[in-house]
Amino acid sequence: QIEKMPYDINGNTWFENIKIGGYVQSRYNRLLETNPNLDCSQCDKSWGAGNGISLRRVRLKFSGNLGDYVYFYIQPDFASSGSGSGQHYGQLRDAYFDVSLDKAREFRFRFGQSKIPYGFENMQSSQNRLPLDRNDGINSSIKNERELSLLFYWAPQETRKLFRELVAEGLKGSGDYGVVGFGVFNGQTGNSPELNDALHIVGRISYPMQIGNQIIEPGIQAYTGQYQMPRSNLSDGVNVKENLNYLDQRAAATFVLYPQPFGIQAEYNWGTGPEFNKYTNTIEQTSLEGGYATLTYKISKFKQLFYPFMRYHYYDGGKKFELDARSYNVNELEIGMEWRPVRAFELVAHYTISSRRYEDFQNQDNLQTGRLLRLQAQVNF
Amino acid sequence: QIEKMPYDINGNTWFENIKIGGYVQSRYNRLLETNPNLDCSQCDKSWGAGNGISLRRVRLKFSGNLGDYVYFYIQPDFASSGSGSGQHYGQLRDAYFDVSLDKAREFRFRFGQSKIPYGFENMQSSQNRLPLDRNDGINSSIKNERELSLLFYWAPQETRKLFRELVAEGLKGSGDYGVVGFGVFNGQTGNSPELNDALHIVGRISYPMQIGNQIIEPGIQAYTGQYQMPRSNLSDGVNVKENLNYLDQRAAATFVLYPQPFGIQAEYNWGTGPEFNKYTNTIEQTSLEGGYATLTYKISKFKQLFYPFMRYHYYDGGKKFELDARSYNVNELEIGMEWRPVRAFELVAHYTISSRRYEDFQNQDNLQTGRLLRLQAQVNF
Amino acid sequence: QIEKMPYDINGNTWFENIKIGGYVQSRYNRLLETNPNLDCSQCDKSWGAGNGISLRRVRLKFSGNLGDYVYFYIQPDFASSGSGSGQHYGQLRDAYFDVSLDKAREFRFRFGQSKIPYGFENMQSSQNRLPLDRNDGINSSIKNERELSLLFYWAPQETRKLFRELVAEGLKGSGDYGVVGFGVFNGQTGNSPELNDALHIVGRISYPMQIGNQIIEPGIQAYTGQYQMPRSNLSDGVNVKENLNYLDQRAAATFVLYPQPFGIQAEYNWGTGPEFNKYTNTIEQTSLEGGYATLTYKISKFKQLFYPFMRYHYYDGGKKFELDARSYNVNELEIGMEWRPVRAFELVAHYTISSRRYEDFQNQDNLQTGRLLRLQAQVNF
Repeated sequence: QIEKMPYDINGNTWFENIKIGGYVQSRYNRLLETNPNLDCSQCDKSWGAGNGISLRRVRLKFSGNLGDYVYFYIQPDFASSGSGSGQHYGQLRDAYFDVSLDKAREFRFRFGQSKIPYGFENMQSSQNRLPLDRNDGINSSIKNERELSLLFYWAPQETRKLFRELVAEGLKGSGDYGVVGFGVFNGQTGNSPELNDALHIVGRISYPMQIGNQIIEPGIQAYTGQYQMPRSNLSDGVNVKENLNYLDQRAAATFVLYPQPFGIQAEYNWGTGPEFNKYTNTIEQTSLEGGYATLTYKISKFKQLFYPFMRYHYYDGGKKFELDARSYNVNELEIGMEWRPVRAFELVAHYTISSRRYEDFQNQDNLQTGRLLRLQAQVNF
Repeated sequence: QIEKMPYDINGNTWFENIKIGGYVQSRYNRLLETNPNLDCSQCDKSWGAGNGISLRRVRLKFSGNLGDYVYFYIQPDFASSGSGSGQHYGQLRDAYFDVSLDKAREFRFRFGQSKIPYGFENMQSSQNRLPLDRNDGINSSIKNERELSLLFYWAPQETRKLFRELVAEGLKGSGDYGVVGFGVFNGQTGNSPELNDALHIVGRISYPMQIGNQIIEPGIQAYTGQYQMPRSNLSDGVNVKENLNYLDQRAAATFVLYPQPFGIQAEYNWGTGPEFNKYTNTIEQTSLEGGYATLTYKISKFKQLFYPFMRYHYYDGGKKFELDARSYNVNELEIGMEWRPVRAFELVAHYTISSRRYEDFQNQDNLQTGRLLRLQAQVNF
Repeated sequence: QIEKMPYDINGNTWFENIKIGGYVQSRYNRLLETNPNLDCSQCDKSWGAGNGISLRRVRLKFSGNLGDYVYFYIQPDFASSGSGSGQHYGQLRDAYFDVSLDKAREFRFRFGQSKIPYGFENMQSSQNRLPLDRNDGINSSIKNERELSLLFYWAPQETRKLFRELVAEGLKGSGDYGVVGFGVFNGQTGNSPELNDALHIVGRISYPMQIGNQIIEPGIQAYTGQYQMPRSNLSDGVNVKENLNYLDQRAAATFVLYPQPFGIQAEYNWGTGPEFNKYTNTIEQTSLEGGYATLTYKISKFKQLFYPFMRYHYYDGGKKFELDARSYNVNELEIGMEWRPVRAFELVAHYTISSRRYEDFQNQDNLQTGRLLRLQAQVNF
């Protein structure tokens, strides 16, 4: 006598709808180290003195298409710190769902916490990226690349297919964040509570295209909003704007030549944000800029993949989400190789030549230069 | 030469025994807001000033029948706060297993952390409930509805089938917590450590029955025990009983008419517990009462579901698990609709007209009234 | 036009490659308790006054063979404490992957966080172990048994098969940690950050062999390194070595007779490490020793399994990972039985007769003796 649900039955079992995958990265950064005081808080906390073997990422992905219009993706990371000294707690990276307006899923709304479409390297999964960490210049925009947001994406069906292949066939693509993407987000960066009443807005255009036998992907993107300095990130004695809010605004240009076999990936961004000034002991509204260029060569040999690569990156500006909007000046060159002997396993080694000035109220003269060899073993499942 | 295990082999693969599902809720509560100081700590921390887009629940469910007598259910939530300002940590909601005495599973013991059988709306999953949060009156009994416990449930086979259908066919059922349920639990509410040496006891009877073409479910339930105020929830200067223990005792009556198409869900409870008194600056043993009535209309049209609804709820009493057993007086009216265009996706909008007085030692005069529009997008998988 | 990946396609779906399983343990330790001040911080925090029903372990395991050379294993626990009073957060136990040099997987490198091959009972899963907690003598070596490490294991194919059967057929085996295992690890114990610049080294040999109708497994193992006392584990006023580093060195001998039907499991270890001395208020480098013997009888009857057992264990030394490297002297006798009526469910009851002296700077005279009945219900999936 009970009326049945009105929806068509798709007849799939749960394991046909839902897929589980993931990856794990284990690292060691202490070989050939010339300066144990050189560290890198945003990129990898296991650089420098007092560190050993580490897990950089332990990711489980639960995802799937649910009928013709809905897709979901949940990705906790189990290499996250708790508060205090505890390690390896499970914390969300992604938890989003797409609702598309058409069966081809060309027009999609995305709800939840997901990557904010700003920067190609930001969109590229750490599972695929060659250098072990993202560049400071663009990644200083949004810590963990993700935010609570409402986004809209559009990409035609054939471009969606191309986005997929550029990842699946080892060309180090970014995945599908639309040819056009725009929307709103909280603006305090991922997993951090919103503090002011203003949402950020973001927009991006990125279009992969065939030129002869090569595929290139130029892109532009920008966002703007008000960032509020969290009180827990302010040293006693530092001067700060009374309402704690700073304009947080950036624009970036991207050029990608996919490695068939030679590849280029280059981005640069300009903007403004909060930054600590040691001469006035004040967090000021300053301009910022930075970017990178990565050169790659893809070699498929002995049924294995080899990717020698080189990246130079640069940043001059503040990091809003660090203590006192810490002031940064970064010049870094990395030369390395990824070796993937079987599908499920990769080894990366890269030699890093680094010059990093990072200064806050408590550490006002801090230029660290040095070199180190970085090693990573990764499993993909 | 090694002796084999004595158990029958069921021959199933792991994915036939174990099922994964879940849901995600993303919300925005800031539209048409008339009072940014009106917030609601238990129901949804993202009301009011300084909030934006939020994830209210990110749930993964792992469950399954293991042979003829055992069932398990594990449900972490990835929208839980850590201590400090971190968000989106994985924390258990449920982790329980049923051991039944018969193959029809009519008689079951339940071990672990699970919902305590007190209240129909408490048992109803947030995945199915129409208003975005539970009513204060009854939900103030047990935060997160769950406790470490040992419970016993009985329900005849045909009623178990009915419990299942009332959820599966969109009639907003509570799930199967037995026609009769009783047992013991720690009493400090879910995910909080036990503090005293006394267990709480609980009992519930709830019986769905056919009356003509309609199904109703009347129920009664009660629990009693000693609740110990955690020291971390006491302001300096507040007066409290020397041993910190207060009687925590409630009884509730439930009436449900399932929406075919018109539905009623109403509950009320009376009891006693700790409550802050601002005139004496003392946490006192006081009486409490409260409940709600929800009216629903289920519309199945265009192969979609629509549920317009209205709920009024009321509470007068303390919240034992909040600072100083915060004193509450709540009157709230909600008018809204759930729209489920496809099986996997729901949108809820409701307009909330609220009057909330909530006072503790640090905030002694705090009556907040206001209105707001609340929005939620949900994916079910 | 895009070049395909060079790897062979195995054609498996994700659920054929990846397997999910786990177990949950719910406990109650308050019956027949003679001394509510007797507790046991490392073994089970829910002994003694102010405790009730608890979840000791809530484990989900994700694992699988990925092609011929790679295996992964990720196991979060959802019964872990956060900082502060929160409970039931998800925290890693294992996150490792094996890369083998041969298709038979006889020679394997293991990357990530995994059990350090030191001690048979340490390797034995809590899912299989008879006494509810590990012995203090050997488990005081490495909290949670796991560390960030790089390990190498070797075992011939037929021994790997035997290791598997010894677990699968209910003989309480340790699983496959190689006939020979060795490697390096951080040395601050699992989920704790590395503090000094020195890695620990470890080696183990354990060889199961057939003697008539019986199977025995003798083993030896040892590790050495520098342990750094974390500042958060030092009381104000306690004296400590200036660089905080202490030699952390142990060797152990193991003898196992698998229960067909009578079994013996015995281990003893000697070593040195930091330990609080209450006469000098100093954390000193001292010697330590301890071990256990467990007697078992395996009964397979009525298509069920019964394991009556008895364990005596002893420890004299410090626990480096507790406050002030707390000084311990433990004598404990346990008599109990595990009953497994169906494959997925087990009940354990054991009566514990305990004498525990555990002293730090803040609690200098603390000898607790007492008896209690311990109960555990466990589900396996």
